[in-house]
Amino acid sequence: MELKDLLGGKGANLAEMMSVLKLPVPHGFTITTDACRDYMHSGWPKSLDKEIALHVKSLESKMRRGLGDATDPLLVSVRSGAKFSMPGMMDTVLNLGLNDKSVKGLATSTNNERFAYDSYRRFISMYGRIVLGIDGLKFEHALEAAKAKCNAKTDADIPADALKDLCEQFKTTVAVETGKPFPQDPAKQLRGAVEAVFRSWNGPRAIAYRVREKISHDLGTAVNVQAMVFGNRDDNCGTGVGFTRNAATGVNKPYGDFLVNAQGEDVVAGIRNTEDLDAMKKKFPDLHAELMAIFVRLEKHYKDMCDTEFTIEQGKLWMLQTRVGKRTGAAALKMAVDMTKLSAPKGGWKISKREALMRVTADHLDQVLHPQFANKGKVLAKGLAASPGAAVGKVYFTADDAVDAADRGEAIILVRSETSPEDVHGMMVAKGILTARGGLVSHAAVVARGWGTPAIVGADMVKIEGKTFSVGDITVKEGDIISLDGTTGEVVLGELLLEAAEPPKEFKTILKWADEVRKGKLDVRANADTAEDADKARELGAQGIGLCRTEHMFLAPDRLPVVRRMILANTPAEETKALEELRQVQKEDFAGLLRSMSGLPVTIRLLDPPLHEFLPRVEELEIKKAVSGLNAEEEALLKAAHSWAEFNPMLGTRGVRLGVVKPGLYAMQVRALMEAADQVAAEGYKPVIEVMIPLTVTREEMALARSWVEEVLADINSRPAPKTKKGAKRVVRPKVTIGTMIETPRAALRADELAEVSDFFSFGTNDLTQMTFGFSRDDIESRMMPAYLEAGLLKRNPFETIDQTGVGELVEIAAKRGRKVKRGMKLGVCGEHGGDPESIGLFYRAGLDYVSCSPYRVPIARLSAAQAVIGGNKSDTK
Amino acid sequence: MELKDLLGGKGANLAEMMSVLKLPVPHGFTITTDACRDYMHSGWPKSLDKEIALHVKSLESKMRRGLGDATDPLLVSVRSGAKFSMPGMMDTVLNLGLNDKSVKGLATSTNNERFAYDSYRRFISMYGRIVLGIDGLKFEHALEAAKAKCNAKTDADIPADALKDLCEQFKTTVAVETGKPFPQDPAKQLRGAVEAVFRSWNGPRAIAYRVREKISHDLGTAVNVQAMVFGNRDDNCGTGVGFTRNAATGVNKPYGDFLVNAQGEDVVAGIRNTEDLDAMKKKFPDLHAELMAIFVRLEKHYKDMCDTEFTIEQGKLWMLQTRVGKRTGAAALKMAVDMTKLSAPKGGWKISKREALMRVTADHLDQVLHPQFANKGKVLAKGLAASPGAAVGKVYFTADDAVDAADRGEAIILVRSETSPEDVHGMMVAKGILTARGGLVSHAAVVARGWGTPAIVGADMVKIEGKTFSVGDITVKEGDIISLDGTTGEVVLGELLLEAAEPPKEFKTILKWADEVRKGKLDVRANADTAEDADKARELGAQGIGLCRTEHMFLAPDRLPVVRRMILANTPAEETKALEELRQVQKEDFAGLLRSMSGLPVTIRLLDPPLHEFLPRVEELEIKKAVSGLNAEEEALLKAAHSWAEFNPMLGTRGVRLGVVKPGLYAMQVRALMEAADQVAAEGYKPVIEVMIPLTVTREEMALARSWVEEVLADINSRPAPKTKKGAKRVVRPKVTIGTMIETPRAALRADELAEVSDFFSFGTNDLTQMTFGFSRDDIESRMMPAYLEAGLLKRNPFETIDQTGVGELVEIAAKRGRKVKRGMKLGVCGEHGGDPESIGLFYRAGLDYVSCSPYRVPIARLSAAQAVIGGNKSDTK
Repeated sequence: MELKDLLGGKGANLAEMMSVLKLPVPHGFTITTDACRDYMHSGWPKSLDKEIALHVKSLESKMRRGLGDATDPLLVSVRSGAKFSMPGMMDTVLNLGLNDKSVKGLATSTNNERFAYDSYRRFISMYGRIVLGIDGLKFEHALEAAKAKCNAKTDADIPADALKDLCEQFKTTVAVETGKPFPQDPAKQLRGAVEAVFRSWNGPRAIAYRVREKISHDLGTAVNVQAMVFGNRDDNCGTGVGFTRNAATGVNKPYGDFLVNAQGEDVVAGIRNTEDLDAMKKKFPDLHAELMAIFVRLEKHYKDMCDTEFTIEQGKLWMLQTRVGKRTGAAALKMAVDMTKLSAPKGGWKISKREALMRVTADHLDQVLHPQFANKGKVLAKGLAASPGAAVGKVYFTADDAVDAADRGEAIILVRSETSPEDVHGMMVAKGILTARGGLVSHAAVVARGWGTPAIVGADMVKIEGKTFSVGDITVKEGDIISLDGTTGEVVLGELLLEAAEPPKEFKTILKWADEVRKGKLDVRANADTAEDADKARELGAQGIGLCRTEHMFLAPDRLPVVRRMILANTPAEETKALEELRQVQKEDFAGLLRSMSGLPVTIRLLDPPLHEFLPRVEELEIKKAVSGLNAEEEALLKAAHSWAEFNPMLGTRGVRLGVVKPGLYAMQVRALMEAADQVAAEGYKPVIEVMIPLTVTREEMALARSWVEEVLADINSRPAPKTKKGAKRVVRPKVTIGTMIETPRAALRADELAEVSDFFSFGTNDLTQMTFGFSRDDIESRMMPAYLEAGLLKRNPFETIDQTGVGELVEIAAKRGRKVKRGMKLGVCGEHGGDPESIGLFYRAGLDYVSCSPYRVPIARLSAAQAVIGGNKSDTK
Repeated sequence: MELKDLLGGKGANLAEMMSVLKLPVPHGFTITTDACRDYMHSGWPKSLDKEIALHVKSLESKMRRGLGDATDPLLVSVRSGAKFSMPGMMDTVLNLGLNDKSVKGLATSTNNERFAYDSYRRFISMYGRIVLGIDGLKFEHALEAAKAKCNAKTDADIPADALKDLCEQFKTTVAVETGKPFPQDPAKQLRGAVEAVFRSWNGPRAIAYRVREKISHDLGTAVNVQAMVFGNRDDNCGTGVGFTRNAATGVNKPYGDFLVNAQGEDVVAGIRNTEDLDAMKKKFPDLHAELMAIFVRLEKHYKDMCDTEFTIEQGKLWMLQTRVGKRTGAAALKMAVDMTKLSAPKGGWKISKREALMRVTADHLDQVLHPQFANKGKVLAKGLAASPGAAVGKVYFTADDAVDAADRGEAIILVRSETSPEDVHGMMVAKGILTARGGLVSHAAVVARGWGTPAIVGADMVKIEGKTFSVGDITVKEGDIISLDGTTGEVVLGELLLEAAEPPKEFKTILKWADEVRKGKLDVRANADTAEDADKARELGAQGIGLCRTEHMFLAPDRLPVVRRMILANTPAEETKALEELRQVQKEDFAGLLRSMSGLPVTIRLLDPPLHEFLPRVEELEIKKAVSGLNAEEEALLKAAHSWAEFNPMLGTRGVRLGVVKPGLYAMQVRALMEAADQVAAEGYKPVIEVMIPLTVTREEMALARSWVEEVLADINSRPAPKTKKGAKRVVRPKVTIGTMIETPRAALRADELAEVSDFFSFGTNDLTQMTFGFSRDDIESRMMPAYLEAGLLKRNPFETIDQTGVGELVEIAAKRGRKVKRGMKLGVCGEHGGDPESIGLFYRAGLDYVSCSPYRVPIARLSAAQAVIGGNKSDTK
């Protein structure tokens, strides 16, 4: 257990600042996370009151003042402090220990009655609001009224008497709102504040934050109790927040906000306009110099940019807290690279390239890769953040309307209940996509991510009727402008400002280092279905294609009718004719892909989805039939739609099962692929081909599918290879490997048998997760998943980060059993987890050779793969 | 490897008869199954011709005759013989070795030209039909014409010359049909016959038989080549089939069919009326005595009833084959019990009770338990045999029509595309159920099995339109009579005769023995949802209820509207009110169940299915809306149906997930249950209760569900227990255990975590199989499963017999991990596999405490459990 686990981040850092760095830190003590966990489990721990009393006594003796003392009282601050910094929890109660007696003692000892009552009114309102849960407006209104009454411009202009009155009013408010008088006993005040911190751990905002940030609900928070120092005694006082470097840009220059005669909350609340550190330098040159020296020591100690809070009390500088500071993506990249050089002023220090790599997160890269909104707006609705990036455009409700509008040069947001293959032409022209239904692997989400188009799906408060949609009583019509943030899932009415993504130069440096670290250890490929995607992927550093979903080639508007002809075929001849047409177009698609990835491996997955995905929906045709009747073609389609409709298509006739039902299909695809290979080889490209069979569950199934592929290969190879365009030499045909996806629990368990007839495995962790949990992602993700994450029934969304102990164990079992039969067998992953940093850690430890993800995730995967090799992203739950 | 593996059953028995029992068996040799497997893998084995030639030579020298010899030729029979007896494969070619020359030799050596040409014409037609694949009618027509020409009444009346002509005609037919002359070289004839045997292994009828009988496609068949003896030379010859006991009744008296002057095929084909063994005794008293003595030796050797073929050639008895004979269920029971007594005439022998138990199969019990058809009819359609037994009735197409007809006293067969909860009242009155869609766990199948109502589902050639259905060009109207055989899946037009099931008295004896063997080792419970089912189960020997599906209580017509009110509730108050109503009715249901099972454990599974199962279908309402509009209630239902509709309901919001979404639901069910327990305890019954949570995947989920149950228990227990009706004593409330189903792969893998918060596990192997394979049973079973079984992609239907190496491993893992955390934890299974003999073997070996199955399977499970304990039904693949 680390110090941070027990004391929380804030407590651990305070202890370090005081005992290791010898910085001027006010005395205090920390109540451990153990106590919080006890509290959550079985209420206020019996021994805690006594322990707190002991620590308070020790603190009182160090400070030579007593809590609640009527002559020279000790005041303390109470702050929450979990292992990971967590907005959403109770933050801070200041000035605790003041009561009707000690406020007089404070007035006497400081010889400043106004200060004493100003502190008291702050304490009552803060305690009332944060600990007792009273609406803060009740205090604010009274404060405003008091200011108005005495014509005070700012809070600081309110005279002492008025503050005294205000304290009385505030106490009355507390009594009215809680039914009890404001607590006068400092020990009770302290227990109340500590309990409030504990409680706030399970407050809804804290839970929501932990769900978003993937922090375990079990950790609990520590509580930091610290002697108060006062930045608001007089003008020889002040308070500030300081960063050792610029957290927004990464520039190596301290940066901060500062206020004279104020307490910390004033800086954060933004009530008064703050000044910068240069202003501090003018007013307190010595203290500024001391602070700068401390910054140097902090950076040297933490070897990172630090964020600090400090207070000046009558000419003395106190450090109230410090932590390694949060930063933007651009700043993270710049700092990480900068810090590898001996750059600090004195006692120079630097970090290694490997350390630098560990400083950059996936979110940092994401930020610099996708366009962002530069401003904020009123959030109209929220859905699932399906494809990151920001988009602004006019709303259209059908694909055809979207295409027409795009032809007129408009920027389009396509809004649909859900999308289907028939919407693809509209999706192609859209800047962003919004759907009311569907989860993160819905058609809309998968297509959008593939193209890097920002998308929000499953926004179920969006009610679409005809060519309008409404959220509550707000109606949005066709042509109205909305803004989508695919990174947060927020829909905003009207136009936000877009900031283009321009990765800083350190982006390339970091990724170069990452590639050096992971070289030969964990490759990164991309999932790409078209030459355009493949080009993008290669540009972003992909080392091949780990998954080409050939079904996407079937969905283009000019192909769908042919696919339907194949499905509807009444005779083998008709079926063959349709397959033949498909072969021609598939060949062109494959050729493009192979050209783009020349010299790098391309994994082609044969057709996977259930056939009904290529047919119109039963309901639509049934309704049309009931209302206006169907023509002969529609009748045939309806019959086919009925015949192929399934109760649970996810578990139905798809993958290799489709190959068994339509045996000509896979042969056609392989033939198209091999003809494309010949064609591009003749042009001088180097095709490297892996054929992948989806959804196998038995060795016999894979052996059969393999035989189909080998038959075509044998036939192709029986013919002479083409000659290169330039010379008279014949090209050397590549050796094609044939492997399978591991995407059912049975395939994972029986990987030994499958390995006998497979050259490689690629883990389809999306489906594997769906089947291992029994979670249909499309159904679960909008209704159940949020509830499950909030209630702590799941620690993570297993579709985002692989479930380590369930699905993860299956991956490990399969890797082990597969390699036992076939030593050194190539293993990869092509589910969405292939782009998730923590999952990549598991894949590396399981011995996989590569991960494959969407082109836009490739840089993130490259970084994460390096981090996995370094060993830094182990799977301990946050 | 056993002798049977290599030589096949027939070959091994022949070898035994000759070398061990020293019976008069014609010389011969057997080509092993190895050769067949080689042939299937890579064509005719190179060395086989030589080996056959060597064996033929050896046979010729033993018989002192040569194959094809022009003076005194050797003739042989060629028979297939797999490890397991298999109709559907090539059976026998007799008289091989005859050609234009040797037929003359045969005529000379036997001094019987008629016999020689009769044998030749038989050979040509048999070879033509069986080896060369020529339509048998072509030979039959010629034979009939020949008979007519010479005014012959029977085949035996055709004179030699006419037979000669017939041979010429037959050879011409062969040449015309095959394009080649009839082979004259005996070596070629033999190779052709052997290859035909090999090929017949993969004939469609053989494959279909193996799929039905669960025999592996990999075994291959042996080929038996044996010197011919002739039962058709003259009236001092004959042939017969003999059973050592009566295979239909089990009576210990030899039984058989016999024909004078005939070959074996005549007995089997039923061309002439056969006589019985008494007739043989009259004609051949010595040979009859010899046969009876052989029967005694056979029974003593095999310790079982044997089935034999024999031939008399000019006063000498030859045994052509023997095997342990097939028998009816009643006969199997009687023989098994009889043979435990020292009953055989001489050199008495007997079997142990344990051996007797191994002699009876599940099919035997099934036969004596369910009504059967006494006659056969034209099969109109075939579907999945969903619920065994036979039913006859008039066809009705809606539940309401069925109820009206039943009120008029008619026997009803309900025919539907598929059934839903709204059809339940019609299903209740039906004698049998037929659906065109759905698999073996479809609503229709599950409900029918639960009630013991014969049912056929997924008969997809049945096209329903309005109040008629058609199969091909046959149309069946409302009120027409059909017969359903739920054991075979066959639908017959018209009325077949029903035979009531009356188990013989040995039924009870065998089950008593079974119970003695399995006592304390493997219990058998039943899945039952109502008091009636529970009564039936107890009568059939169930030791408790392993699964009560509480959803069935929600489906009754008077409850569905209340369930819908709960789903549609707009306010918590409305929801609570609906739940309260449901609590009242559930309480009564539970009370009935607990009374019936007093003193035995009852496992109540809290609500499991997705809520949309209680709502009308979206399509229906959408169509109605489009056509005629909806009223307000229907609009609300449509909205709810949309809201709860799921893409893959199997993997959606069901099981404990439902409990999370509707937290009051489970609490209501537990309260109803505990109130029922109090009520029946006061009446003097002894309720034993196990509460079961479905579909958990994480410990946290189970802990939460457990807390709901415990809260209600604590509340109930805080009130005084009721007094018994008679005395003033208060009843002692039972300790309720709380467990979970293991029905997702993740639950199996993380059984250790779940065991921390579960008192017991019950394996839901239906869902576990669906998720482990990614097979939606409803979708897969009609379209994919038959194709997969026929192609050998699956050795077994994993929904009938548990998949040993995939799903089975998960069961073993879960049992091990669960018991590691909680020693001696109670484990059971309540999927349909709980009633499958082979699966029961795996469950026993995995350490489970009980299996639970439908009430009507309980006797079978009792027997299978005993067999598992004895160790006889290990899982080696047939």
